[in-house]
Amino acid sequence: MYRSHTCGELRLANLNQSVTLSGWVQKIRNLGGMTFIDLRDRYGITQLVLDVESRKDLSEEARKLGREYVIQVKGKVEERSNKNGKLPTGDIEILVDEFKLLNPSELPPFTIEDETDGGDELRMKYRYLDLRRNPVRKNLELRHKLGFEVRNYLNQQNFIETETPVLIKSTPEGARDFIVPSRMNQGEFYALPQSPQVFKQLLMVAGFDRYFQIVKCFRDEDLRADRQPEFTQIDCEMAFVEQQDILEVFEGMTKHLFKVTKNVDFDFQFPQMSYEEAMKNYGSDKPDIRFEMKFVEMKDMVANCGFKVFEDAPYVGGICAEGCAGYSRKELDKLTDFVRKPQIGAQGLVYVKYNTDGSFKSSVDKFFDEATFNQWAEAFGAKPGDLILILAGQKSKTQSALCELRLEMGERLGLRDKNKFSPLWVVDFPLLEWDEESNRFHAMHHPFTSPKNEDLALLDTDPAKVRANAYDLVINGVEIGGGSIRIHNDELQHKMFQLLGFTEEEAENQFGFLMNAFKYGAPPHGGVAFGFDRLVSLFAGIDSIRDVIAFPKNNSGRDVMIDSPSPVAESQLDELNIKMKQSKQ
Amino acid sequence: MYRSHTCGELRLANLNQSVTLSGWVQKIRNLGGMTFIDLRDRYGITQLVLDVESRKDLSEEARKLGREYVIQVKGKVEERSNKNGKLPTGDIEILVDEFKLLNPSELPPFTIEDETDGGDELRMKYRYLDLRRNPVRKNLELRHKLGFEVRNYLNQQNFIETETPVLIKSTPEGARDFIVPSRMNQGEFYALPQSPQVFKQLLMVAGFDRYFQIVKCFRDEDLRADRQPEFTQIDCEMAFVEQQDILEVFEGMTKHLFKVTKNVDFDFQFPQMSYEEAMKNYGSDKPDIRFEMKFVEMKDMVANCGFKVFEDAPYVGGICAEGCAGYSRKELDKLTDFVRKPQIGAQGLVYVKYNTDGSFKSSVDKFFDEATFNQWAEAFGAKPGDLILILAGQKSKTQSALCELRLEMGERLGLRDKNKFSPLWVVDFPLLEWDEESNRFHAMHHPFTSPKNEDLALLDTDPAKVRANAYDLVINGVEIGGGSIRIHNDELQHKMFQLLGFTEEEAENQFGFLMNAFKYGAPPHGGVAFGFDRLVSLFAGIDSIRDVIAFPKNNSGRDVMIDSPSPVAESQLDELNIKMKQSKQ
Repeated sequence: MYRSHTCGELRLANLNQSVTLSGWVQKIRNLGGMTFIDLRDRYGITQLVLDVESRKDLSEEARKLGREYVIQVKGKVEERSNKNGKLPTGDIEILVDEFKLLNPSELPPFTIEDETDGGDELRMKYRYLDLRRNPVRKNLELRHKLGFEVRNYLNQQNFIETETPVLIKSTPEGARDFIVPSRMNQGEFYALPQSPQVFKQLLMVAGFDRYFQIVKCFRDEDLRADRQPEFTQIDCEMAFVEQQDILEVFEGMTKHLFKVTKNVDFDFQFPQMSYEEAMKNYGSDKPDIRFEMKFVEMKDMVANCGFKVFEDAPYVGGICAEGCAGYSRKELDKLTDFVRKPQIGAQGLVYVKYNTDGSFKSSVDKFFDEATFNQWAEAFGAKPGDLILILAGQKSKTQSALCELRLEMGERLGLRDKNKFSPLWVVDFPLLEWDEESNRFHAMHHPFTSPKNEDLALLDTDPAKVRANAYDLVINGVEIGGGSIRIHNDELQHKMFQLLGFTEEEAENQFGFLMNAFKYGAPPHGGVAFGFDRLVSLFAGIDSIRDVIAFPKNNSGRDVMIDSPSPVAESQLDELNIKMKQSKQ
Repeated sequence: MYRSHTCGELRLANLNQSVTLSGWVQKIRNLGGMTFIDLRDRYGITQLVLDVESRKDLSEEARKLGREYVIQVKGKVEERSNKNGKLPTGDIEILVDEFKLLNPSELPPFTIEDETDGGDELRMKYRYLDLRRNPVRKNLELRHKLGFEVRNYLNQQNFIETETPVLIKSTPEGARDFIVPSRMNQGEFYALPQSPQVFKQLLMVAGFDRYFQIVKCFRDEDLRADRQPEFTQIDCEMAFVEQQDILEVFEGMTKHLFKVTKNVDFDFQFPQMSYEEAMKNYGSDKPDIRFEMKFVEMKDMVANCGFKVFEDAPYVGGICAEGCAGYSRKELDKLTDFVRKPQIGAQGLVYVKYNTDGSFKSSVDKFFDEATFNQWAEAFGAKPGDLILILAGQKSKTQSALCELRLEMGERLGLRDKNKFSPLWVVDFPLLEWDEESNRFHAMHHPFTSPKNEDLALLDTDPAKVRANAYDLVINGVEIGGGSIRIHNDELQHKMFQLLGFTEEEAENQFGFLMNAFKYGAPPHGGVAFGFDRLVSLFAGIDSIRDVIAFPKNNSGRDVMIDSPSPVAESQLDELNIKMKQSKQ
């Protein structure tokens, strides 16, 4: 038996017990003929004492030790004279009687402490050592707990967790599919699923009624900082439901998760905001509503104002930053630099300081008079001491720049507290979005998303105006999940394909088996998928999903620890009847 | 709102309530001016009554209906005059007031009943309809429940469910790896994991202490009747454990599953049997111990007997089939045919009838006398009325044929009751097996399996005799899971690689990053993996794993429903910089 207790469980109540512990050497100190060792495992740290003065055998063993050595000790639980209030085990120590070195360790390439000296690449290469660090392991423990509680909740709600295939079919639309050559069916390929979308809809056709799965999905795309080629979804689908039914179930799930992991009670219904309202007031379909600072549209106010920038711009809008009228020239320049960053892309920034003495100071003083500023201040609800920040330009670009500016100001003003959570359903997304490049409509969500009944007539007259039964759950400005009520009517589905520019043949090729299934009594259904990695990182209070994945890949899709992907043997390619083309030097 | 209740929940207690139901039309009957409809959903069947005589509108709707149509009805709960005791809802019916056709259905290609007229291929092609059938859906519900309870149990035991990557590295040994070309890293490939073995060992090095995962694994091999290219494992690993610790935890898990899904209590410790004993007594490392009928080895008894077949055979052994002495010539011929089948491969079958009158009748009467038969009977523990069946030949082949014969006789004698469960730990597997073809040892489990301490010395003198800390859980002759205590000592691991014929370089290439991890304080550890598909099929009392998988593939690795694998666009291959070689016509 390697241990009678873990390193996290002994207390004063265990005094004088003979115990066996195993774990890693976290720290060693020699003091007055005694050696003190902090022994660590997943559950905690326990202090060991070796009386090396009177026990020569122990002293010999102790001399061999270094950080991260694995040892087993037997000894007696004693009360510490010098208690450590920070450790749950801080009242006791183990007077070691027997000692066994289970495995030595080379010097780790970085310190295994909460704050480490290891850089990103190094920690990824030695991920198994990085995972030993408390904050990293705690993220994964939280991930386990969240997954477990998702299952608890959905099981109680009669959902059946059903595994769908990982080896599926590549579709012509699946440009970002990973494909897998088949040995038994040479010349043919499987694809890895970007989501189990089709299968969960088939399960509804199959009458499963309530399906969920916590499942790996795959996308072979150029990775932005916070994407992974394999990621995890909480994938759900329900039959015989309308939008509100789904929102209620998953609002319930979200509340359950907050309750059990953070003891946060939401004693209110999550607010619902239309896509249109979100764009108008926050310039984003995932607004952070921990703070207000809504956009004020100024186009009407600045008509014929003589300031060409405002006059020429299709959109002029601003925000009011409370109490920031005292910003210095330098601070304002910094803000201007911020909005001019290429990824934000504004041309410049107009400010209006509403000074505490009631006067105004603005970068556009020469175009506007005090009366106009007063009128603006009223429109913004600004008080003396506030700062109005205004952007002008092409509508969607400017809104999105203003959104970034709002978030930046929220950050500066301390309005984005990581311990505050502001959930929001964004609803009524447009069904379609126009794609300039291909000169046709794309489905904003996917081709199976249903239009709102009251907008059906617009499908023929003004498709861009049609709203979908689609919804996103947004928390603190982060999109946690989204979904839609699906089309279950054959005729409507065909109309949708037409609108999206599919020929009958293309629709048949790509979605034939689902369309076929719909002929045999498909129930009304809809669903939602949550980004599990994103959800965990939100709950963990960290920004990157990489920190909540045990073995993540880097920005080039590489696992630097195992060095993958990698070349394979020629014979393996032979068996698959494929070969590499000429190198593209 | 599509429904106020499901089709499985209304009872007499709901009398006179106005309810809304949605579901599928299971059956329609017209009787005396009334139309009776069985409305089905996942939860049950409720009888609807349409008074088509007095409600012309309903009669019109009812005329449109066919099997599997999806409808919504509103009506009042009434007591049935003609109650159906077989249905939980059989005391009530719904007198329909409003009626809505939600979706029509074409005539399904087979009947959606517990017993269907659809053949295998057809049901696979229309799997979404097959899944509507009760027995199929119940298998998947059981699968959900088993998965859920595995998690409940392991969570309570402090295991952390941790996802390991699906896109990993192909190793030269991974001949059966599926590989995945990388677009971002052209010329390089990921592999899909045959198991998360390496990652779970790394998690132990990382100090995760107790890991599990219910996880998809992949193997690109020629599929036998009951294999799937993607399958699911309950994968587990523990640190600071010896074999017995692991057996206890997972015996506990197995008992928990039997308790919660079948209300079966095992009030005993699962028996443990050495591999050697299992082979000797049952000719199999996964004996079905629901019944005895142990092998009796006869080589000593038939030395110099004059019967050449016995004299020449390295192995002679038999079983005693209780009460079968009355077998007719024809029945015995059938048994002979059975053992001669190519997949069983015996040359012939010798029988000895121990007649109820105490006399003997045997196919080898002319070689042996009554006294010898009496002596055999004693060795077999045979009583008058029993039948002794004997095979002779090369040892392992004959043992395995005798094993099949034993199972066949167990089946005939009704000794293999699907409702009886006989769990067994098979332990002390050999560490190595000699491979004639490559003229070297292979690891019986995998190269990281540890030898028994007491056999360490044999590694140098007689490697074939070394037993491993490896174990399988067998229930009713089915291997449900298996695992081992791993090597955590560098030196021993290198010795192991040597024994397996690896050069240092090969070992480094294939397992370098794991070996490297072992240098930084690897704890003693071990684990187990359960075949989840197999486990579910055992609990469901069915033979094939295909019946417990929502969307299985056929024997050629094809999903006939979605028609996968399939050719992909040339452009997709271009992006990956690969192409097909010449067709191998």
